[in-house]
Amino acid sequence: MTKLFVVGTGPGAADLVAPRARAAVEASTDLVAYGLYLELLGDVCDGKTHHDLPLGEEINRARLALDLAASGKTTALVSSGDIGIYAMATLVFELLDRQLQGQEDQPEWLDVEVEVIPGISAMQAGASRVGALLGHDFCTISLSDLLTPWQTIEKRIHSAGSGDFVVSFYNPVSKKRDWQLNSARDILLQYRPAETPVLLGRQLTREDESIRIIRLDQLDAKDVDMFTLVSVGNSESRRIVNGSREWVYTPRGYRKKL
Amino acid sequence: MTKLFVVGTGPGAADLVAPRARAAVEASTDLVAYGLYLELLGDVCDGKTHHDLPLGEEINRARLALDLAASGKTTALVSSGDIGIYAMATLVFELLDRQLQGQEDQPEWLDVEVEVIPGISAMQAGASRVGALLGHDFCTISLSDLLTPWQTIEKRIHSAGSGDFVVSFYNPVSKKRDWQLNSARDILLQYRPAETPVLLGRQLTREDESIRIIRLDQLDAKDVDMFTLVSVGNSESRRIVNGSREWVYTPRGYRKKL
Repeated sequence: MTKLFVVGTGPGAADLVAPRARAAVEASTDLVAYGLYLELLGDVCDGKTHHDLPLGEEINRARLALDLAASGKTTALVSSGDIGIYAMATLVFELLDRQLQGQEDQPEWLDVEVEVIPGISAMQAGASRVGALLGHDFCTISLSDLLTPWQTIEKRIHSAGSGDFVVSFYNPVSKKRDWQLNSARDILLQYRPAETPVLLGRQLTREDESIRIIRLDQLDAKDVDMFTLVSVGNSESRRIVNGSREWVYTPRGYRKKL
Repeated sequence: MTKLFVVGTGPGAADLVAPRARAAVEASTDLVAYGLYLELLGDVCDGKTHHDLPLGEEINRARLALDLAASGKTTALVSSGDIGIYAMATLVFELLDRQLQGQEDQPEWLDVEVEVIPGISAMQAGASRVGALLGHDFCTISLSDLLTPWQTIEKRIHSAGSGDFVVSFYNPVSKKRDWQLNSARDILLQYRPAETPVLLGRQLTREDESIRIIRLDQLDAKDVDMFTLVSVGNSESRRIVNGSREWVYTPRGYRKKL
């Protein structure tokens, strides 16, 4: 049997890594991951062969993980957050799909036993740090237009607005992606109030975590980088201040019943 | 200092409980939770005072947790999944909000230090068990119309359809809620193909877990109960079969680039 673990290690803090994720890394001889993710895991990675590839090489990283596992090495493909959410897991299955369709020539991949282990995603870490921002219906939208046309993303932001979903933007900005977040803000402002609370959570649950709560009309791409989660409340989300502590929560429904 | 932990313990499996969640329960003298959730946690609950309230008493459960913490007992309010997603966390903040607005008479609540600890939610557990269903933009919709008018929910399902989000339905059915899921299916069928893959995940990651992958036009409320997560793929989600193993994944984007 050849085995590939596809593992999400949560937002960053060591004590938010699920024991199942840690055990999978421990059971592996080979790890495919960015170096930073493994640093967050600590000693459990010692003595394992570490395979890294430059950013942007996601497809080759998934190929490498399948190749290693197919060669008989128990392998873990690791990312932070939930590896099933905008991350590597889907690429593994896309490659298997291509093999099944005869578009790849790696029949040995099909003998690999794949196990996906979910993790706590950034939106959850962010919501918990400020209260309960995800208390009612929500959606996630990636602002990366590398693989999805901007027209599709734009339509989706309109849908999030008309449906009054709490919206978490993943991949909100990058070096080359600087106007999309402001455009997204302007679309949402057509549907919800200017004072709608917005969470900017940078390096969530890590040592250099920073958290800001702002108004939707204050959201600006220049205050956001690729380590920042942006979550926008719905029209009922409330920002409350208790002494020095500030919270944001989204009520469960649209009619109060307390 | 008085302390209230608001803790999500993940979908069910003991090794998907974050160490931080377990430590919070361990540090508490009083636990407010359904009995079942504590059973899943095991020994760590031994020797603690356990407070339970009937289903439907969510608001009083949150009040009780705040009262206990305010009285000086380190308390954990516990739910399965992510307590910040359709769960108790938002009620705690709603009560604090009411106190701040003078609608409650419990000033001692405002001295409680509240810490929310997120957990892996059912949609994540479900997606991981079948592959990578949440690989691209997704949303969650609760079909409970106790606190949200059906018209609002209906509009939201249309938005999820027009935005082509992967959709996870929480609270899909109950004893009294039997037609909403079929109505939701019919709305989504206006936007995506009949063969769109749908995951029915019951008791995910627990001993009696059952998982079915069906087509959207086969979705029927009679096959779903309150322990079932229903996740509907987007128009690009793919169901693949490799020998005896079946997977569903949602590609990262809308243009292939492999």
